Amino acid sequence: MATLNDIGVAAAINILTALAFFLAFAMLRIQPVNDRVYFPKWYIKGLRSSPLVNGSAFASKFVNLDLRSYTRFLNWMPAALQMPEPELIDHAGLDSAVYLRIYLLGLKIFGPIALTAFTVMIPVNWSNNTLEHSGLTYSDIDKLSISNIPIGSHKFWTHLVLAYGFTFWTCYVLKREYEIVAAMRLHFLASDQRRPDQFTVLVRNVPPDPDESVTELVQHFFLVNHPHHYLSHQVWSLTSTLKIIPSSITFSLLQLVYNANKLSELVNEKKKIQNWLDFYQNKYKRNPLKRPSLKTGFLGLWGNSVDAIDFYTSIVERLSRDICGEREKFSSNTKSIMPAAFVSFKTRWGAAVCAQTQQSRNPTTWLTEWAPEPRDVYWENLAIPFVFLTIRRLIAAIAFFFLTFFFMIPIAIVQSLANIESIEKALPFLKPIIEVKFIKSFIQGFLPGIALKIFLLFLPTILMMMSKFEGFISLSALERRSASRYYFFQFINVFLGSIITGTAFQQLNHFIHQSTSQIPKTIGVSIPMKATFFITYIMVDGWAGVAGEILRLKPLIIYHLKNSFLVKTEKDREEATDPGTIGFNTGEPQIQLYFLLGLVYAVVTPILLPFIIVFFALAYVVYRHQIINVYHQEYESAAAFWPDVHVRVVAALIVSQLLLMGLLSTKEASQSTPLLITLPVLTICFHRFCKGRYEPAFVRYPLQEAMMKDTLERAKEANLNLKGFLQNAYIHPVFKSADESDSESESESEWERSPALVATKRTSKRFTPMPSKDGGSVVSLDQVNDECLKP
Amino acid sequence: MATLNDIGVAAAINILTALAFFLAFAMLRIQPVNDRVYFPKWYIKGLRSSPLVNGSAFASKFVNLDLRSYTRFLNWMPAALQMPEPELIDHAGLDSAVYLRIYLLGLKIFGPIALTAFTVMIPVNWSNNTLEHSGLTYSDIDKLSISNIPIGSHKFWTHLVLAYGFTFWTCYVLKREYEIVAAMRLHFLASDQRRPDQFTVLVRNVPPDPDESVTELVQHFFLVNHPHHYLSHQVWSLTSTLKIIPSSITFSLLQLVYNANKLSELVNEKKKIQNWLDFYQNKYKRNPLKRPSLKTGFLGLWGNSVDAIDFYTSIVERLSRDICGEREKFSSNTKSIMPAAFVSFKTRWGAAVCAQTQQSRNPTTWLTEWAPEPRDVYWENLAIPFVFLTIRRLIAAIAFFFLTFFFMIPIAIVQSLANIESIEKALPFLKPIIEVKFIKSFIQGFLPGIALKIFLLFLPTILMMMSKFEGFISLSALERRSASRYYFFQFINVFLGSIITGTAFQQLNHFIHQSTSQIPKTIGVSIPMKATFFITYIMVDGWAGVAGEILRLKPLIIYHLKNSFLVKTEKDREEATDPGTIGFNTGEPQIQLYFLLGLVYAVVTPILLPFIIVFFALAYVVYRHQIINVYHQEYESAAAFWPDVHVRVVAALIVSQLLLMGLLSTKEASQSTPLLITLPVLTICFHRFCKGRYEPAFVRYPLQEAMMKDTLERAKEANLNLKGFLQNAYIHPVFKSADESDSESESESEWERSPALVATKRTSKRFTPMPSKDGGSVVSLDQVNDECLKP
Repeated sequence: MATLNDIGVAAAINILTALAFFLAFAMLRIQPVNDRVYFPKWYIKGLRSSPLVNGSAFASKFVNLDLRSYTRFLNWMPAALQMPEPELIDHAGLDSAVYLRIYLLGLKIFGPIALTAFTVMIPVNWSNNTLEHSGLTYSDIDKLSISNIPIGSHKFWTHLVLAYGFTFWTCYVLKREYEIVAAMRLHFLASDQRRPDQFTVLVRNVPPDPDESVTELVQHFFLVNHPHHYLSHQVWSLTSTLKIIPSSITFSLLQLVYNANKLSELVNEKKKIQNWLDFYQNKYKRNPLKRPSLKTGFLGLWGNSVDAIDFYTSIVERLSRDICGEREKFSSNTKSIMPAAFVSFKTRWGAAVCAQTQQSRNPTTWLTEWAPEPRDVYWENLAIPFVFLTIRRLIAAIAFFFLTFFFMIPIAIVQSLANIESIEKALPFLKPIIEVKFIKSFIQGFLPGIALKIFLLFLPTILMMMSKFEGFISLSALERRSASRYYFFQFINVFLGSIITGTAFQQLNHFIHQSTSQIPKTIGVSIPMKATFFITYIMVDGWAGVAGEILRLKPLIIYHLKNSFLVKTEKDREEATDPGTIGFNTGEPQIQLYFLLGLVYAVVTPILLPFIIVFFALAYVVYRHQIINVYHQEYESAAAFWPDVHVRVVAALIVSQLLLMGLLSTKEASQSTPLLITLPVLTICFHRFCKGRYEPAFVRYPLQEAMMKDTLERAKEANLNLKGFLQNAYIHPVFKSADESDSESESESEWERSPALVATKRTSKRFTPMPSKDGGSVVSLDQVNDECLKP
Repeated sequence: MATLNDIGVAAAINILTALAFFLAFAMLRIQPVNDRVYFPKWYIKGLRSSPLVNGSAFASKFVNLDLRSYTRFLNWMPAALQMPEPELIDHAGLDSAVYLRIYLLGLKIFGPIALTAFTVMIPVNWSNNTLEHSGLTYSDIDKLSISNIPIGSHKFWTHLVLAYGFTFWTCYVLKREYEIVAAMRLHFLASDQRRPDQFTVLVRNVPPDPDESVTELVQHFFLVNHPHHYLSHQVWSLTSTLKIIPSSITFSLLQLVYNANKLSELVNEKKKIQNWLDFYQNKYKRNPLKRPSLKTGFLGLWGNSVDAIDFYTSIVERLSRDICGEREKFSSNTKSIMPAAFVSFKTRWGAAVCAQTQQSRNPTTWLTEWAPEPRDVYWENLAIPFVFLTIRRLIAAIAFFFLTFFFMIPIAIVQSLANIESIEKALPFLKPIIEVKFIKSFIQGFLPGIALKIFLLFLPTILMMMSKFEGFISLSALERRSASRYYFFQFINVFLGSIITGTAFQQLNHFIHQSTSQIPKTIGVSIPMKATFFITYIMVDGWAGVAGEILRLKPLIIYHLKNSFLVKTEKDREEATDPGTIGFNTGEPQIQLYFLLGLVYAVVTPILLPFIIVFFALAYVVYRHQIINVYHQEYESAAAFWPDVHVRVVAALIVSQLLLMGLLSTKEASQSTPLLITLPVLTICFHRFCKGRYEPAFVRYPLQEAMMKDTLERAKEANLNLKGFLQNAYIHPVFKSADESDSESESESEWERSPALVATKRTSKRFTPMPSKDGGSVVSLDQVNDECLKP
């Protein structure tokens, strides 16, 4: 049992660690040589150019010699907070802005709760002597917790009333936040520029037809079932001949989804070779006297010496031919066309209608749903038939169940194998080294843990693979699904696993053989005892972890390694920086764990709350800085994850209520049970209300909004060429990344024309692949074919 | 423990009872005087006219003297089976035809299961001597059950394999049936004549607007958000003036929903008086010499004598004036207009789109859903706001919880009060009578039970009231909800209550304090012991109950009583017959109980299966007869209840699997547990698959279908006056029933014009209120107002 002093020491250590991280960050970030690591977002946006190019003195290119800048080493904090929210949304997208609101939500919920708990509950807890007289060992922290109240005391009414108070406050804040986020989402969608996904619907499970190709089938189906203009009946009788563009048709633009693995390989190969070509061309440009040459053998160490530029040029040409050949195969081979299509509509209204309605008699064919944003599409999953989806979900659910409850078994096996004796047996020549005492104790202490650590490191990846297997069609959905699984895993194995020691499977077995009313009691009783453990956990994982996040040690090292050894061209350097993303699938479950801890301990051991508040405040500042300067958005889902966030906080609330009930029932305050049982019931009702009231804003697209935007657009831009805008929006990345440089000039002029909010000097194609207007920056299929015809 | 002999005797008794009922029915139904009781459906259809009118001899009007007809007393059975299903659908609606399929489903599931069980399992069970050696009392039935297998025997593999086999067979039949019913529903909707609900959407929670009335608001909203015809952009700029009928509009016909209680009273009053007037006019017509007179005092026994026709005519006129006044009040008073409307569209496509999409930014306003059939609308609930719906559902859920688990408490109180002593105390003068020994023992035996019986009698009504309170807007939804609640009540209090004796609350308490894995064991162990009880239950409730249903004793008595004392006019006689309905809310849960029993006992005590099969066969014939000849459909929901039926059978399947698992685990056959656990998991997956595959057919209306019907209709009837057809489809019954006789002739000509499948001579307005074409048979608001202008 830790005393207040112990906690103080641990806090001091962690605060110092965090400060050290911040200091290191402050030093590193102002060095020009690290500029690309700490400000990649601005490079991507094109608002910052490399200091390596326009620096003056050689030394100042790498080291910051301006000593004044070192004195202001914490000035990034106010800077991070300065950018107002609307600008932040423009700068980093709504997803990021709303993600930050999760931290704010934590502050809003726990600030007033902590205040109330400290003024009311701690004095009540402190003014008893139960623990002193009990003869048990106890710490000062326990004196502040509910454990200090004598059994059967009337003081438990304080906790009961506060449990109600905290529940109502949490629900109030949650509701307000849901309301605000829903409004933000709708406002974002409404004020957002024209985007292809507003007009596009993804159609899956197109039924096979012996007479028509998928393309024709889709076109006919939507011609018939979503006529928009129709004037009179005559038009209908004419539509049988497709020559007459029927007036009953909104153009349905088909961009079929290809199954293209080999092609994708070729494209990647070409990209690599092209990079080498660029490298040698640059070299030649810098030193025009000597034409670079290379050897064709292994690693360029031996073999014939050839002219490097000619050599790579010929390879690039060959690959281009192969790619064209593959593409033509696709065009002619109908088997490679998957039964899925992106169908675009003339108006947002038409798309909203198509996405929300059932198309065909058989509800498993012609499945329509909103198309995700072009960069959000997960192409691999587009063609999974309905039946397989059901089976895949079942398999994934079972796999996840076993992963959660039985993951300890393989790890325990690995641990039992990976001991000194078996290593010595397998690799006898290592014996002398291992037998050295220091190394031996190190291995013995380290080895068993490493299997678990590696597993936990790979867990998000495993969960993401599961989600992919389940068949979600957008990256955002994949991340949401992984996040909820990760949260459940953490709830079972971190939260419950820490409270009741033992593996998850032992718990499960325990619970199955225990009465239903016993479970909350078992857990509830252990809760106050684990407070100090969780306080330490918060400081290590929360405080130091967040401070470590800002240092970006891993990307820093990787960037410098790559920069020293691999980077050949400017493009390579661009690619060497990994800006990273928010990482919703791992970040959000972590925050949710703090919500859970805060809500559970709010009534039991309120001393834990300040630690959580510090975490939320710190994380808010750090992540705001990272979002502004570092992370690059992979996709924009317009805060589609908020319902998940909301439901998890509500679940944490219900868990906290049930555990409090279990705890109080062991304190012989069972007259409070009926009052405590109503709390989860009320909370569930609150959730249902919120679900009905706000969730549709995240799932459906109201027709009124769609119509409003359509009308406005028609009034403002009467002669809009929507067809051109949508033509190449949804193209498989393989076709798209074909020939980027060709269309660069086009795309730039396009960017200048469009009313961009941030002045953009140049655009990196790799990071902003899709939202270019009129599809000018990407090569359409026609263009590609034209190109193929050239020798 | 009943022996096979006991069961045989009980079976004989019940078979004789059932035969007696059938015999009585056979005698009674061929008496002309009972014709209206046993063939009301044909009267309603107008295909049978009263035998009292066109009979020849006086006696033969009341008693059937044709002796030959007595010899064929069971010939109604083949007659009931003869009508083919498509004709049945025409005759009695799809709901009835599909309802009968539930019985067929029972036969399909349990026929093969019984066969397999008898050939495989009964020999396996019989060939053991466990019970003989156990020293326990046992019956022959137990020798055929799983109880006879020794503990830990390998013979349990038979049961395990059969459990799998039965599950797969049940799922297969269920899937096939779901498929067929879904196809039937879609075919019915597609081949059905034009119906107003195909074009109409119910809009609820119209938000209040200070500037516009609800009517205007609704009209503007749908003008803007569901334009259909729009040609170009210019039209849009013109629509601001409403004078120009905008081409961007599908006409949205508004029939606002009135809150009209007082008016409804007046209309009923007028109807009653009108009936008296008809009576006296008929009397006068038969005897033109004497003008009928009556006394104005109490019950017509004293007071001034006045001319009856004049007297009632004046009252009718006064009431008509009052009604007109009330109606005008409505037209002028905007407060009586509820924020809900039926909005009709020009095409089915338009209605399907509007019903399936979200209209406004705020998902709790402008709620749209398919309008129920006009006669299916439950008008009282149309105006409940969204927030109240959530609260009402919470209250109803809590009330139902207490009703299910605590209903015994008030009944026990009533029982303790209603004993002889307290009656003697309250009513001392009854003491001498009560003290007579025979009466005393009768009261003592009878009184405690009567409270429970009365409660059970009123339970469906109570559940229906709950559903109404919850705010469902159609009668079919109300019945579905009540049915699922009734099933749950029966499951807890009849099924579990019989297996584990004790009240539901005691069980609940027991289960809460018991381990989760213990519950299936506790129940599972008791199951084989209760087989004889359930066999008796099936014979009494199932066999005799169904045979009693065909006799229609209650309607028979009520009809003859009414006919003798109350009937004044022909219309009165018409109203004296109560054809009744299928009663989905009570009938279906009863059938489901048999599914549950059959599935639970299939593996445990297969001897129960033949009794269930007899029930299904008998009930099928009887209900088929009743549906053809007696029941009158209140509404047509196109088999919308099938998903409920399906899910309840699946739930019964899962319950049976869990209980078998519990039972086997006590038999030390626990190595089978993992195999048995996969069964419910597979079953749940099957359910999810079916839900995704077939349920949408019952909830949504595919656009393809809608478009197909629209196109066909436009081709066939180019000049259709849809506006006229829809104008008066959805009018509050108060306005509608105003003046039926006026429009009778109109409606008749209408009926002749329409391609009716069954030749109809006349239509009873009371029973077919709505489906008349062009609304000709009902009085529109304009007509009503015209009428009011007349003196």
